[in-house]
Amino acid sequence: MPVPTKIPIDAEKLQSEIDELALISENPAPVVTRVLFSEADLKARAFVKGLCQNAGLVLREDAVGNIFATWLGTEKNLPPVATGSHIDAIPNAGKFDGVVGVLGAIEAIRALQKAGFQPKRSVEIIVFTAEEPTRFGIGCLGSRLLAGALSLEKAAQLRDSQGKSLEEWRKSTGFNEKELGTIKLKKDFYAAFVELHIEQGPLLEKENIAIGVVEKIAAPSTLQIQLTGSGGHAGAVLMPGRRDALLAGAEIALAVEKSALESGSPDTVATTGVFRIEPGAVNSIPCRAWLEIDLRDTQVKTRDLALLNVEKSIHEICQRRNIQFDLKRLNVDAPALCDSVLVQTVLDNCRTINLSVKKMVSRAYHDSLFMAQICPTTMIFIPCRDGVSHRPDEFSSTEQIKNGVIVLAKTLSQLSAE
Amino acid sequence: MPVPTKIPIDAEKLQSEIDELALISENPAPVVTRVLFSEADLKARAFVKGLCQNAGLVLREDAVGNIFATWLGTEKNLPPVATGSHIDAIPNAGKFDGVVGVLGAIEAIRALQKAGFQPKRSVEIIVFTAEEPTRFGIGCLGSRLLAGALSLEKAAQLRDSQGKSLEEWRKSTGFNEKELGTIKLKKDFYAAFVELHIEQGPLLEKENIAIGVVEKIAAPSTLQIQLTGSGGHAGAVLMPGRRDALLAGAEIALAVEKSALESGSPDTVATTGVFRIEPGAVNSIPCRAWLEIDLRDTQVKTRDLALLNVEKSIHEICQRRNIQFDLKRLNVDAPALCDSVLVQTVLDNCRTINLSVKKMVSRAYHDSLFMAQICPTTMIFIPCRDGVSHRPDEFSSTEQIKNGVIVLAKTLSQLSAE
Repeated sequence: MPVPTKIPIDAEKLQSEIDELALISENPAPVVTRVLFSEADLKARAFVKGLCQNAGLVLREDAVGNIFATWLGTEKNLPPVATGSHIDAIPNAGKFDGVVGVLGAIEAIRALQKAGFQPKRSVEIIVFTAEEPTRFGIGCLGSRLLAGALSLEKAAQLRDSQGKSLEEWRKSTGFNEKELGTIKLKKDFYAAFVELHIEQGPLLEKENIAIGVVEKIAAPSTLQIQLTGSGGHAGAVLMPGRRDALLAGAEIALAVEKSALESGSPDTVATTGVFRIEPGAVNSIPCRAWLEIDLRDTQVKTRDLALLNVEKSIHEICQRRNIQFDLKRLNVDAPALCDSVLVQTVLDNCRTINLSVKKMVSRAYHDSLFMAQICPTTMIFIPCRDGVSHRPDEFSSTEQIKNGVIVLAKTLSQLSAE
Repeated sequence: MPVPTKIPIDAEKLQSEIDELALISENPAPVVTRVLFSEADLKARAFVKGLCQNAGLVLREDAVGNIFATWLGTEKNLPPVATGSHIDAIPNAGKFDGVVGVLGAIEAIRALQKAGFQPKRSVEIIVFTAEEPTRFGIGCLGSRLLAGALSLEKAAQLRDSQGKSLEEWRKSTGFNEKELGTIKLKKDFYAAFVELHIEQGPLLEKENIAIGVVEKIAAPSTLQIQLTGSGGHAGAVLMPGRRDALLAGAEIALAVEKSALESGSPDTVATTGVFRIEPGAVNSIPCRAWLEIDLRDTQVKTRDLALLNVEKSIHEICQRRNIQFDLKRLNVDAPALCDSVLVQTVLDNCRTINLSVKKMVSRAYHDSLFMAQICPTTMIFIPCRDGVSHRPDEFSSTEQIKNGVIVLAKTLSQLSAE
């Protein structure tokens, strides 16, 4: 089966599907909030499965809710080619992160179908469960379990901020018919994995380049800390007797920033993204605080140095302020190297159709980080305005998205024709 | 009518009423949460009004929900004697703060009735609306309006964290039949106001003293700050480009602490009790933060110095970090001096019945602070365990409460017999 030279992407249809999915949100438009297993997340899953069914794809779901939509190839014994991304969104996010890689993949397949192409290997779209860490404090839940990068013991311990466990959520959403142990895929289950995604950084836009091909994904790590001090009335407890959990948290957040600024690498980034206190009343001394810290780098060495400095600071601050703490390393992941042959394939495809392209580092977490542990993987980036992501004003144009989908479709057709 | 020498306080009944009221809470026992106008607050009001009716008191409510329960005196033209406190509670609080002064006042009147006493002046229990600032960020809402210490313009601007205004709340709770302008009482509407309250500090317990008589109430002030920076993906935005609202907030919270430590007075206390960020996801740079700061002192001079230093720090930090801020002084109140004759009356009463007593400063906010602006005022303090308040483990014994109620009843009978 020859690979089609002309692939008729319907960018308007894709754009209207992106817009429609954005309305399925826990907050009014333009804000997109779709936390794992929320009503909005479940509705969005139904919407995407509907589109897949209309395209004639075969659906299955695994025990954590990863969705697989398969365009069956002529040789069903060959490892399929996979693509996909996620549709969950952090609170107050935008409509492109993750979504472009899911709805774009569906449009890529529809366009290849229209072009009369018939794949030899099956082409499989994966909609990963919880790329975002909002509910359980750990990102890439679905792809971690697919890659065997999260032990079943650790998965069983996951709890959301309301104390509800992953097991309880699996039960209430009906994903518990199979055991968690059935999710893991064997190495090279897929022939390749290619993820289309917005850049979430400013480089492509600044340099006016249409496509980025990812050759490396930064090494992220996540810390969770609970601080326990002593509360009391803000008027009645004098300063020397205080054990204020918020103040310890404030010092820690500043130490987190310092660890990145002093790591020795301009690529180290460190963020305290979650900061909650109790009781949270103006006239009450905060007795408890919860922090979640994200620290990442393209080099393991400087990342680990920063991580160590943060942990040292936490010890010092809590000892000085007489605050008890419970510190957990939720994950300390290795960086991923993308497959050089795949990277070259995408580069060549861009050049064939006269799209400007450059090799890139992904600084954001992606399901590709874990897919790279079980099969040859790369990512296709498209520009997004001002590098903004995880915000309602996140934006990529219909044309920019179309460019990415053409490159994805072309790459999928080549990989599935072999 | 002679003042009764023996006042038969039913401390067991009072204790069981305190326990029953504690169960009316937004959180399971032993946690008490009763935020203004919540379902729990409205139920608690109904419970208290029921007790007042059973005691034969005449009820009225004003336009902000202050409850007045009157034991009618024989000479209705004389200014009544007032007592009372509040029943609202901050999130995760205990069952004695405020409640002892309301239910204790009801028991004081029931005991005086049992003793056959008939007041000449009416005795009025006031249950103040929102002594706690949880909903609108401003404490003593009811007593401020009674004293004319909050302008109607400012009251009209009050909004809770959901954006719902005081006017909307008055409408949905049915308190809007009268205008806000009808609440204010003329000076000397009351002959006196005496509030029974737990100490919320450790001094009485430490010195093993039964009763504190308050001669001064500390000068509190409250600041509210909204910080606006720039969000983005925690992995993709490098450190030099960041405008992290949480980090500015962290520096401000530490500056608040410093302002109290360096004010020159050991009595200055400063607390950041509210600290919320948005979006609050581990992989997202905080773009917004809200802080509420409580700063108080027994001396206006050192309090104002600390306040000035906090405001200077906010300017400096936000300029350096390129963060926009909106700073509001929600209130900057003057300290209250209690009425020396009333203080002496309470002291004498304690000595007559052989209860140990000392004069005290109240460091916490109380409705008495505002009542003192319109009539002679003092407070009766009883010990509480470890000085703990605003926590579920807040505790005063039945015996300690009984002591306070006897002193209150004796004082009310003297004041209302004149």
